[in-house]
Amino acid sequence: MNYARSPLDRETFIQKLRGEGNERFHTKHPFNRMMFEGKLTKTQVRAWIVNMFYYQLNIPMKDAAIISNCPIPEVRRFWISRILEHDGYGKVEGGITGWLKLGEAAGIPKDDMISARFLPGVRFSVDSYVNFARTRHWVESVAASLSDLFYEALAERVKAFEKHYRWVKSEGLGYFRSRLIQTKRDSNIALDIAVRYCDAAELQKRAIDAVSFKNDVLWSISDALYTAYVVNEVPLSASF
Amino acid sequence: MNYARSPLDRETFIQKLRGEGNERFHTKHPFNRMMFEGKLTKTQVRAWIVNMFYYQLNIPMKDAAIISNCPIPEVRRFWISRILEHDGYGKVEGGITGWLKLGEAAGIPKDDMISARFLPGVRFSVDSYVNFARTRHWVESVAASLSDLFYEALAERVKAFEKHYRWVKSEGLGYFRSRLIQTKRDSNIALDIAVRYCDAAELQKRAIDAVSFKNDVLWSISDALYTAYVVNEVPLSASF
Repeated sequence: MNYARSPLDRETFIQKLRGEGNERFHTKHPFNRMMFEGKLTKTQVRAWIVNMFYYQLNIPMKDAAIISNCPIPEVRRFWISRILEHDGYGKVEGGITGWLKLGEAAGIPKDDMISARFLPGVRFSVDSYVNFARTRHWVESVAASLSDLFYEALAERVKAFEKHYRWVKSEGLGYFRSRLIQTKRDSNIALDIAVRYCDAAELQKRAIDAVSFKNDVLWSISDALYTAYVVNEVPLSASF
Repeated sequence: MNYARSPLDRETFIQKLRGEGNERFHTKHPFNRMMFEGKLTKTQVRAWIVNMFYYQLNIPMKDAAIISNCPIPEVRRFWISRILEHDGYGKVEGGITGWLKLGEAAGIPKDDMISARFLPGVRFSVDSYVNFARTRHWVESVAASLSDLFYEALAERVKAFEKHYRWVKSEGLGYFRSRLIQTKRDSNIALDIAVRYCDAAELQKRAIDAVSFKNDVLWSISDALYTAYVVNEVPLSASF
């Protein structure tokens, strides 16, 4: 790709973001394919829920890091809703609580999830995502946050649970349902922000690389789960 | 002070935080004393407003940095209100807009304030505060944010403006009045958080040092203003 001269026009830039997003999206990972095809055991599903809780726990800190680097009040005013919706506010319970309820619906007691020892590969991947948001230009981190936009991963996930893992109580899927609504509402605004503030070729390139980086984060989380729970078939208790 | 053994009890710890806060609070700085005594010229008052705008601009990023380092959802849920109140939300206009209005009430056009070239000493001091919040334990940054608690600086400021600088239109003082209400409501909660999470002697010591660090930040902002606008009497236009 040649970024040397002028910035890409809006449509080309969006197309490249999407292309990069789809290229190696984690839904193509063997662990996720197994999930969608109903091939995961109870232990493997629970391992996924427990370990992804570490990701959930860190998302508000990642979003606060973006705000902490962002000098544009209008962007901060929009982005703060992500923290509110994840941590909860007033009577809205938020994504972290939603995830705990998903765990309970799958037979994982809340306290076990909170005190879980997450897989090192999961921790390192998530930590590097938070660190990315702390240290990079804020618009790169906005781009990294766009991944929800590129695939119907959430909808696919809900379908997989409803079809293949009916032992997970249906009310536990509230997390996915709320996220679906939020994502539809927010992701185009986030994309608009990325397009608007990536006003130079160099920044556009970094935004596209950020999408790729985020793919790597999600991919390596799946790698850690796959090697621990599919290849080695570690019993779940080992990670608690 | 001996922190080697067990943590200080609540009352002693609070007393030490307050003691450190009062020790070298920026209200004792010559520039602030001149302000309170009505001795600042119009240019000097305007220089203070313009340069403190850089501080205002950075506060939400500082608070987001605290949240980005804080793993406790309850603390984040409280702390996020600081960002909301500074950036504004819904119909609440927020502290930054309030400060722009203070500027306009003092004869500084909004666009001049936004495009101002702030004094280097002001920028470096404020930047180091944001950087502190990015890199230190979150509870140290909470402690650094306690400064409002220690002095009736805000109330004193309003009185000074009402008495000595009546050429600043009264409606411009809305910023101070809103902050007074917010500070009364929030600062005890912030203090409770600091006391609760500084549960080790080492962390208590770092919290006390953080209060001292914050004093240094505010003091050196005043230093920059004093040397530029009192000692050297730089015309305000030089900083635009």
